[in-house]
Amino acid sequence: MGLLSDIRSPEDVRALTPGQMPELAEEIRRFLVDSVSRTGGHLGPNLGVVELTIALHRVFDSPRDSLVFDTGHQSYVHKLLTGRHDFSDLRKRGGMSGYPSRAESEHDVVENSHASTALSWADGIAKANQVRGKDDHVVAVIGDGALTGGMAWEALNNIAESRDRKLVIVVNDNGRSYSPTIGGLANHLDTLRTTSGYEAFLSWGTRALHRSGAPGRFAWRWLHGLKKGLKDVVAPQGLFEDLGIKYIGPVDGHDTEALERALGRAKAYGRPVIVHAITEKGRGYKPAEDDIADRFHAVGVIHPETGLPVAASRFGWTKVFADEIVKIGRRRSDVVAITAAMLHPVGLAPFQEQFPERTFDVGIAEQHAATSAAGMAYAGLHPVVAVYATFLNRAFDQVLMDVALHKAGVTFVLDRAGITGDDGASHNGMWDMAMLRIVPGLRLAAPRDETTLRGALRAAVDVDDAPTVVRYPKGAVGDDIPALEELDGVDVVGRFSPDANRQQAPVTRRVLVVGVGSMAACAMETGAALAAHGVEATVASPTWVLPVPENLVKLCGEHDLVVTVEDGVVDGGVGDMLAQRAGEQGIGTPQVHMGLPVQFLDHASRDHIVRAQRMTAADATRDALAALALL
Amino acid sequence: MGLLSDIRSPEDVRALTPGQMPELAEEIRRFLVDSVSRTGGHLGPNLGVVELTIALHRVFDSPRDSLVFDTGHQSYVHKLLTGRHDFSDLRKRGGMSGYPSRAESEHDVVENSHASTALSWADGIAKANQVRGKDDHVVAVIGDGALTGGMAWEALNNIAESRDRKLVIVVNDNGRSYSPTIGGLANHLDTLRTTSGYEAFLSWGTRALHRSGAPGRFAWRWLHGLKKGLKDVVAPQGLFEDLGIKYIGPVDGHDTEALERALGRAKAYGRPVIVHAITEKGRGYKPAEDDIADRFHAVGVIHPETGLPVAASRFGWTKVFADEIVKIGRRRSDVVAITAAMLHPVGLAPFQEQFPERTFDVGIAEQHAATSAAGMAYAGLHPVVAVYATFLNRAFDQVLMDVALHKAGVTFVLDRAGITGDDGASHNGMWDMAMLRIVPGLRLAAPRDETTLRGALRAAVDVDDAPTVVRYPKGAVGDDIPALEELDGVDVVGRFSPDANRQQAPVTRRVLVVGVGSMAACAMETGAALAAHGVEATVASPTWVLPVPENLVKLCGEHDLVVTVEDGVVDGGVGDMLAQRAGEQGIGTPQVHMGLPVQFLDHASRDHIVRAQRMTAADATRDALAALALL
Repeated sequence: MGLLSDIRSPEDVRALTPGQMPELAEEIRRFLVDSVSRTGGHLGPNLGVVELTIALHRVFDSPRDSLVFDTGHQSYVHKLLTGRHDFSDLRKRGGMSGYPSRAESEHDVVENSHASTALSWADGIAKANQVRGKDDHVVAVIGDGALTGGMAWEALNNIAESRDRKLVIVVNDNGRSYSPTIGGLANHLDTLRTTSGYEAFLSWGTRALHRSGAPGRFAWRWLHGLKKGLKDVVAPQGLFEDLGIKYIGPVDGHDTEALERALGRAKAYGRPVIVHAITEKGRGYKPAEDDIADRFHAVGVIHPETGLPVAASRFGWTKVFADEIVKIGRRRSDVVAITAAMLHPVGLAPFQEQFPERTFDVGIAEQHAATSAAGMAYAGLHPVVAVYATFLNRAFDQVLMDVALHKAGVTFVLDRAGITGDDGASHNGMWDMAMLRIVPGLRLAAPRDETTLRGALRAAVDVDDAPTVVRYPKGAVGDDIPALEELDGVDVVGRFSPDANRQQAPVTRRVLVVGVGSMAACAMETGAALAAHGVEATVASPTWVLPVPENLVKLCGEHDLVVTVEDGVVDGGVGDMLAQRAGEQGIGTPQVHMGLPVQFLDHASRDHIVRAQRMTAADATRDALAALALL
Repeated sequence: MGLLSDIRSPEDVRALTPGQMPELAEEIRRFLVDSVSRTGGHLGPNLGVVELTIALHRVFDSPRDSLVFDTGHQSYVHKLLTGRHDFSDLRKRGGMSGYPSRAESEHDVVENSHASTALSWADGIAKANQVRGKDDHVVAVIGDGALTGGMAWEALNNIAESRDRKLVIVVNDNGRSYSPTIGGLANHLDTLRTTSGYEAFLSWGTRALHRSGAPGRFAWRWLHGLKKGLKDVVAPQGLFEDLGIKYIGPVDGHDTEALERALGRAKAYGRPVIVHAITEKGRGYKPAEDDIADRFHAVGVIHPETGLPVAASRFGWTKVFADEIVKIGRRRSDVVAITAAMLHPVGLAPFQEQFPERTFDVGIAEQHAATSAAGMAYAGLHPVVAVYATFLNRAFDQVLMDVALHKAGVTFVLDRAGITGDDGASHNGMWDMAMLRIVPGLRLAAPRDETTLRGALRAAVDVDDAPTVVRYPKGAVGDDIPALEELDGVDVVGRFSPDANRQQAPVTRRVLVVGVGSMAACAMETGAALAAHGVEATVASPTWVLPVPENLVKLCGEHDLVVTVEDGVVDGGVGDMLAQRAGEQGIGTPQVHMGLPVQFLDHASRDHIVRAQRMTAADATRDALAALALL
């Protein structure tokens, strides 16, 4: 690691000669593969932006100039070039964040890893620079996939309005964000690629184009592109030109010199300008380059040469969903699936294989996912929208005003609900229940195991007059927790009587432990622990928690204390709602609510966060015993 | 009303001859001016789409073909042509909705009046038609302003992907949605207008172009347009063509025959196609045509000839904000204002006059408003984002992940919070407090009167490390309610002792009445009424309700009953939070919470809804007395 190890700041990058760039790039790639294969992390996106990031730091002067990375998972190279070389605890507690982090470096601006925000950030910074009379540059690096998000359009439209702000948009175009980018924009970018005079040395260009689908369509696109190319001989600008934003490109995103020239021109322009860089995700790492299902977007610990997982991951909950939705699809021809550029991660690939004509990837466009689902429901289908829980926040207004107000039978499946951990604050899916409780008519299920997940999905698609939501966490699904008693809306899954040997209290206290969703396991442990302390415990698991089941309220009245455990914000969460409903019915049983505070969680393992936030069975037991002492 | 009165369904429209169209259009305009000037409603937008709506119903076959109107405030003509002629109780309880309503007619599809959704609805319906093997057409009518919303882009991008869905997008381009449309797209549409061969007969076209600003810029645009025009001689397609969507236009939106031809071609095309219609908002009604500040977008009761309000409206809260933000702007050069296409309605026009370089209209783009504000805060400004409360729902994720996560000092000013009434379900700003309570670090003020509104604004812009929100309702602001005692975070505004003559109870009960924001007046009334019933009442008004002030929690402990009254959803609202905080501190005082249920409210006057939802002082008094009887 000759060159890289000496780099402490961007100045050191600028001090190198152009001839040293290939060597530096090679060192960075080797470092990333070695390091990320040990720790896990986003490998492919970072391998794709090695030369681009080098060129950015050679042309611009961070932190005086602001470099804004969209989604931020491609900032590893940026971290290296700004002096952060310790990747040993990447994404672990106390270690480096997998995203930009202001706490780590003055070179980092945006920590939000939700897509399509960078252009808005950049527009805001550029406007502020102008108001404050500063002539610093702002650079936003955004993937072609993220351009499909509505926010990016809103920002482009604003950026185009400016004639004198120093804003450079770098479109990092690898032709696929999470999976191959779809839609009109993607086709347009394809056109720009094909019309350039750059194909010759972009040896992999043809391959990228073959991705676009049917040969007929490809030919049409190509001819269409050629036609435009004859008009705009040097720089095919198309869409961006129509908006009034200068366009430079396409540029080979793996040629540092070409990138520096293009970025230098953009910098000198002094007005909003787009630099279109063609990069290859996973560049330089064979398994990642060849990856079609995009497994290398984010990897767990992998073998550096084969790229295969070292420990086989069990995508438990996702896999159960993937399986059950196919079964439902076989039975119900009106059930269709929608994904927002996350076909594989949310488990819809098997459904697509079986029912391609009933699977819709809308791009990184959660708003459109929700509202087009409302349209489909209006026209007689039952759409299932599968997204990560944290991304549904993007579509709150659409869930409320398009789906719920119109009583549309749409099912939202929220994967990665609750604590996800190592991806940091903006990936935790902890807001869903507290947010969705104010959506009229909405019903939400938090299944506890495989059987209840399958049941909840089947029940959800049977509701045709309201939005339904099924939420489950990231990771492995545990063993089934069978019901001892099935009340309408609530399963009693555990009854623990005090240890006969220890029973000394004159009156046995009765505690109801409510485990929301996968926290049922924790509730079971709590129940057992309470019994060991001489308390009689009932453990209840309500699969459908919105609205709060009547029988759960009733159970509260039959106990001396209620303890709820949920994997979401506790303020306004299920425990809170249960207490409210019970209060309205004059059931004043004291309640203890365990869950997440209204705070952003730093990246750390899920287990660590559960312990740190006092959400373990030991915590619940301790709090319950303390509350009983107060009674 | 010769022709109009005989129209009971679109079939009757189709039965007329082309020669009768001008007469029908004239009748409809006369009807709208007469009728809306009496009832109030959206006049300008409907006058602009008379010929367009006629042509749509002559070419397409609703309800078999779906007609989707974006925002829906331009659906009056559609209502007339589908047999709804009784406008006497427009927007009043039991009367016709000011928006499409499925309850009114099978010809109505989308009731959500938030902008930019129509293309997503249409895409969903078209996809469903395809899956179900139906060959019905879907038509979305969307304004040029609504195209600046991110959702529209997400939808366009999806629509472009389809080669065989029957979807017609009608861009209703009047060059200004609420106010002159801004941004790159608007410039592009300007270009399309100028390059057409249609200028000659669009006599007002030049005027529309002069709106676009500096003459130099206009010239540049025009030349630019001309250059493109030479390339695409017949149909300048630009942006839409780049996305791969066929473009037809521009068409004179007031020439029924031309419209029918264009729509007919679009229908026959059988694939996604855009019809670009140039219309004039307020067409045929002089005061509306000449209106620059867009006062005629929605009007109260006006005089039909002069267009002046019959009763002078008092835009009380908005006016106070408008005044105070200018004062703040004078004092603080770092304070900037952002509006999402609502400069006048939210009261930012005076600020813009004083500080044009510090005022940013981002288009109908709440997401961009929030995130670009975070960028501005990062770069040293304090942005004030003024929006209607209901529209902030569009930016929930951005408030959470861009503003709050990054500890950005951004102030959101929510006008029309709480019940707005006659605009119907999607305009009520009732979700804000329950939604924003889960945003870490966010502080929200609900001022009760002019003095506390001014104070809250000043305090809000002084917070530089967290989002602040100031919310207030629509309409007139009442007299100031002075504080009797100022505790930190809470004002005691009323102390009511039992009527000495009536005091018979052996123990006097003490009730704390908490009035959130403008409900302080109701709380005062309740306090007085309770005293008349022998109860001692304290009335408290916490200006900042998020987080719940400690002193308010403390006050709970000093009373026998707490009654809260708030103008928002009661589930998860301020009362709910207060009870939770009190409970955590072992303060078990019973609480009664008055507010809105988690339900969509039908259009009716604000007063009617307050009564129907049992939110009057009489209701609060009755419930408090009932609760006391239970103690």
